[in-house]
Amino acid sequence: MTTAPPDVLRCAYAELVVTDLVASRAFYVDVLGLVVTHEDAGALYLRAFEEYLHHSLVLRKGSTPALGVLAYRVRSSADLDLAEAYYRALGCRVERRAAGTTRGVGEAVRVLDPLGFPVEFFHEAEHVERFTQRYDLHGAGALSRLDHFNLDTPDVGAARKYYEGLGFRVSEDIRDAEGTVYAAWMFRKPTVHDVALTGGDGPRLHHIAFASHERHQILHLCDHLGALRQPGAIERGPGRHGVSNAFYLYLRDPDGHRVEIYTHDYYTGDPDNPVITWDVHDNQRRDWWGNPVVPSWYTDASLVLDLSGRVQPVVARAEPREAGVTIGADGFSFTGGAEFKLGEQV
Amino acid sequence: MTTAPPDVLRCAYAELVVTDLVASRAFYVDVLGLVVTHEDAGALYLRAFEEYLHHSLVLRKGSTPALGVLAYRVRSSADLDLAEAYYRALGCRVERRAAGTTRGVGEAVRVLDPLGFPVEFFHEAEHVERFTQRYDLHGAGALSRLDHFNLDTPDVGAARKYYEGLGFRVSEDIRDAEGTVYAAWMFRKPTVHDVALTGGDGPRLHHIAFASHERHQILHLCDHLGALRQPGAIERGPGRHGVSNAFYLYLRDPDGHRVEIYTHDYYTGDPDNPVITWDVHDNQRRDWWGNPVVPSWYTDASLVLDLSGRVQPVVARAEPREAGVTIGADGFSFTGGAEFKLGEQV
Amino acid sequence: MTTAPPDVLRCAYAELVVTDLVASRAFYVDVLGLVVTHEDAGALYLRAFEEYLHHSLVLRKGSTPALGVLAYRVRSSADLDLAEAYYRALGCRVERRAAGTTRGVGEAVRVLDPLGFPVEFFHEAEHVERFTQRYDLHGAGALSRLDHFNLDTPDVGAARKYYEGLGFRVSEDIRDAEGTVYAAWMFRKPTVHDVALTGGDGPRLHHIAFASHERHQILHLCDHLGALRQPGAIERGPGRHGVSNAFYLYLRDPDGHRVEIYTHDYYTGDPDNPVITWDVHDNQRRDWWGNPVVPSWYTDASLVLDLSGRVQPVVARAEPREAGVTIGADGFSFTGGAEFKLGEQV
Amino acid sequence: MTTAPPDVLRCAYAELVVTDLVASRAFYVDVLGLVVTHEDAGALYLRAFEEYLHHSLVLRKGSTPALGVLAYRVRSSADLDLAEAYYRALGCRVERRAAGTTRGVGEAVRVLDPLGFPVEFFHEAEHVERFTQRYDLHGAGALSRLDHFNLDTPDVGAARKYYEGLGFRVSEDIRDAEGTVYAAWMFRKPTVHDVALTGGDGPRLHHIAFASHERHQILHLCDHLGALRQPGAIERGPGRHGVSNAFYLYLRDPDGHRVEIYTHDYYTGDPDNPVITWDVHDNQRRDWWGNPVVPSWYTDASLVLDLSGRVQPVVARAEPREAGVTIGADGFSFTGGAEFKLGEQV
Repeated sequence: MTTAPPDVLRCAYAELVVTDLVASRAFYVDVLGLVVTHEDAGALYLRAFEEYLHHSLVLRKGSTPALGVLAYRVRSSADLDLAEAYYRALGCRVERRAAGTTRGVGEAVRVLDPLGFPVEFFHEAEHVERFTQRYDLHGAGALSRLDHFNLDTPDVGAARKYYEGLGFRVSEDIRDAEGTVYAAWMFRKPTVHDVALTGGDGPRLHHIAFASHERHQILHLCDHLGALRQPGAIERGPGRHGVSNAFYLYLRDPDGHRVEIYTHDYYTGDPDNPVITWDVHDNQRRDWWGNPVVPSWYTDASLVLDLSGRVQPVVARAEPREAGVTIGADGFSFTGGAEFKLGEQV
Repeated sequence: MTTAPPDVLRCAYAELVVTDLVASRAFYVDVLGLVVTHEDAGALYLRAFEEYLHHSLVLRKGSTPALGVLAYRVRSSADLDLAEAYYRALGCRVERRAAGTTRGVGEAVRVLDPLGFPVEFFHEAEHVERFTQRYDLHGAGALSRLDHFNLDTPDVGAARKYYEGLGFRVSEDIRDAEGTVYAAWMFRKPTVHDVALTGGDGPRLHHIAFASHERHQILHLCDHLGALRQPGAIERGPGRHGVSNAFYLYLRDPDGHRVEIYTHDYYTGDPDNPVITWDVHDNQRRDWWGNPVVPSWYTDASLVLDLSGRVQPVVARAEPREAGVTIGADGFSFTGGAEFKLGEQV
Repeated sequence: MTTAPPDVLRCAYAELVVTDLVASRAFYVDVLGLVVTHEDAGALYLRAFEEYLHHSLVLRKGSTPALGVLAYRVRSSADLDLAEAYYRALGCRVERRAAGTTRGVGEAVRVLDPLGFPVEFFHEAEHVERFTQRYDLHGAGALSRLDHFNLDTPDVGAARKYYEGLGFRVSEDIRDAEGTVYAAWMFRKPTVHDVALTGGDGPRLHHIAFASHERHQILHLCDHLGALRQPGAIERGPGRHGVSNAFYLYLRDPDGHRVEIYTHDYYTGDPDNPVITWDVHDNQRRDWWGNPVVPSWYTDASLVLDLSGRVQPVVARAEPREAGVTIGADGFSFTGGAEFKLGEQV
Repeated sequence: MTTAPPDVLRCAYAELVVTDLVASRAFYVDVLGLVVTHEDAGALYLRAFEEYLHHSLVLRKGSTPALGVLAYRVRSSADLDLAEAYYRALGCRVERRAAGTTRGVGEAVRVLDPLGFPVEFFHEAEHVERFTQRYDLHGAGALSRLDHFNLDTPDVGAARKYYEGLGFRVSEDIRDAEGTVYAAWMFRKPTVHDVALTGGDGPRLHHIAFASHERHQILHLCDHLGALRQPGAIERGPGRHGVSNAFYLYLRDPDGHRVEIYTHDYYTGDPDNPVITWDVHDNQRRDWWGNPVVPSWYTDASLVLDLSGRVQPVVARAEPREAGVTIGADGFSFTGGAEFKLGEQV
């Protein structure tokens, strides 16, 4: 490929199709505390407290829960032309969208990427008030900004190569001694990731993640859901990831879409940032404290739509599955005293 | 005195006269997050999240800001008779109040105590829902419970003796080498204090204090007031006390009443709990980090009412004042490298 | 019984028999950060940062891991005579121990209580420096003080009655609609408990617990164990209890003794403190977030010694077991959408 | 200027001349908890827990406290040639330094920049272990990474123009209605700053800053210094900045060099990141809570050396000084009810 890719700044917003906007609002606004930039009968446009673009999450009413689109912001409007050319050269379906086609977003290029995900590139977006210091509005579980997307895709190696073509770099990955890659974390902004590639049946959206400043904000979300008698919304965590070092919590929204709340990862912006490789048999890779990963976390994910709004078919992973090589007969990840080895950390 | 004192459990509620209930509500409910048990045109009855009695703070509308009453809860109804006899023997004015005279409070005995403060003793009170786990209602600055009262009184030694008669014990105090006592902290419940006695012109109320679980809740109150563009409500702190080890913040309400938010003190319930004596010249006694005490913290306090609702006259302290022996020419507490000595800590 | 019980202040110390003092020291001193008051070839005497008595934990070298003794502090030396008479009247084996028989502890009365536990009562103890403000020595996981004991006993109703006889009161319990009591939390100092009674084969020690000030200190202990590649020491949590509202973590020491780290419970000192009853089928009773309880937490506990140092026989619980009525086929506590009902909270 | 500037990644390390390495080690290693990469009789090479280059701070023994050099890392070795050409074109003194001239650092270009500061550009550096997850070594006040430099310079407008030439962008600044610029915050990595320009007599180093993850780590440093009876090392704070939103603390090392500890700023990496302009009369610009700025914070700063190790002469600021327009007769920043206006925040 000789066509230059667009200059991606960072993951910017996701659109999720939800079946009940009232229930979704109760979860994303009343519990997670996201700020409503705009809402109407068909959609909610939300942002976190430190974001000044129109939204980082769109919840659009529909009949089937699914991922509508993943959007990356590019450095300039000229990158839209690069994106168009780049994906045409890749043989992908590409659509040019006029400014305002998505409320608050300028001109955009939407593609069905080689992994089967609907992806948008945009530069212009409406500015709204940044609520960084509107502490009068911050709840006990205040979220700062969208942090990353996590995607299920059958062939992590191929997906990684595709994203490297887009200029993303790997910060960490999970492998085994036979060379199988189970997952990779890739970034443009200098955090651990803008997108994680998880080996699994795909294309499916594993989760989107928002960052908070401190861990007590994450703990409060659990307490809050407990008080609402909705502990079932807490799927996994809170805990400390081995990969990324982030403190994490995985929630499931009313449609089953997974949302991670995440803090404490690290700066990756230098070109020689050390890649950390974890052995898939290292029991601390997914949880630094060795707590088991619930099976649903490995199996469940959101379907994704194509550019026409039809559900994309799911292709099964051919390589070994992480759960298959690490989960015991009890259905839970192995926890215990067996030997393991840590990947090179420098 | 041979009359037995009532068995005091703990400091239980304060009534403050405020001039503008709307402004007070904005401060105590919207910023501090206290729960409204009842409100009407004349008063607000508030409690913190872990409290199950009707209120721990009453804000009563009046023309002059003042302390209306300090209330201690006693172990049983029989203690009311003890209280009545005890204060009559002391020659104090005593009033018996029928249940419901104060909303939510059962039968009570009110006295004008020997220090000139209006004090109530009660046992019965209406139970309301304890919101300990109502995390859906907790804000980022959630308060747990009333912790203590702090009183300005001219003669700390005499006041201490009076409170010892009531069964309170000293946890910490501030003295100088000449024997002057500048302040003393006294308790019934096994924390550092239910009441602190501060040497100064009195009777005046220096502050009331609420406890939070963690320090970030206190920091949020500052951020919240900053967002409201009311930094002037932050009088002193946040900081770490030397005395009590508590992390603290002093706020001033719209009428100038001082409210402390407080966490991290320690268990004092064993009978041989070591008394800590601080030298008044120890620059870390009031702030463990050596940050200066603002002059208003030493000079300002709320007037108190007698049992008829008239403002009590203030008697000047005759002994040296803490500010006088520690504050420099710049109007701030001395901070710096001079010698000091720590009191015995065991 | 007409004999008056001793006036118990609080749970005061435990002695655990451990098989390897070096390994125990690495856990209790290097990870938990407890302060060493004294150590010799046969024992370690440890305390937390806010404690001024000689120790709150003794680790004594022996061949079989077991609980050596649970000690309660009483209000005065006169209470030792009361204890002796009280337990003789109960028909228990009673021993009077001279001051210094346990290093740092004065005269004591040891009994084998009706539940089969070795229990000591003492008043006098050696004072040592309280490290409340020795922040130069506090690690990131600093512990403040011993908080409670948790005991496995077959008949919780009988055990509760016995402890009520000693003047303890119930703060919370777990029951079912048929009247079975699965656990009860009881206190003398005004926290949720000094002792918890857990229905199970007994007498066995379920755990001892230390309190920290904030949750991040507990989270650090997990991170620390992760860094040591000892995630197996983390048995359950961290999480938020339904019962007690405390934020918790359960660790297992090198001999399998269970230690809880605990914070955020509430004041219980008023005589009408509302008792909270939880339904055993309420999935949030043990974890407010609905996270499953690992089976070992229900099954494992430490054996206890009699006054002669022989292991006490264990009696099986006859009533239904909490795990039996709540754990699914996967071996984990039920988590999910079924109906449950919360006990009365006022 | 048509010469291209080097591509600066971020601020990378500072070298401070200190007079007593033992005292400096007690401060930077024992209190701040920085990791020692190397030490010898003449210098200490330190890094924070998430850093994998050899050092982010060098303390070099010398007779006069001063800034030895500020170092920026560039994207590639080719940028060294760009740096050399760029500064020669600016007429600055430029030195090429062989790899290892500074221990752990590869080939470098040192210049005396137009503002009078000794500045180094390097790309290659020795990798060492990243201690991100070495929680066994993290203290309660663990620091993550170097965050920024803050420089006193007489003409902020000129300095800003110079740094814009180097590719830095402004995130926030402080101005008045007459057009005077008092300070500007500028960045390459997408945080609020890599360098802040403070209007004052210069060239002087106002401070260097390290980032922590959470605020309690900063509060611990205060507690730790209190325990050491060194509260004088705490110059200002802790508090919340208006500018940057960061939670801050300013310490003074044994030689008077100022070190900030800093957390909670925000992502600035999008090209249209809104610049926030604060009015110099906005009393919340320097402290969101309105707490006064101590005078020494405005007046004191470290001298800087030229490339030959001689102290650079200091040029007085000609424009109005921030302290001059905001500090009252009491010597402290104005705090109170006067009108102010907030800069545009979108």
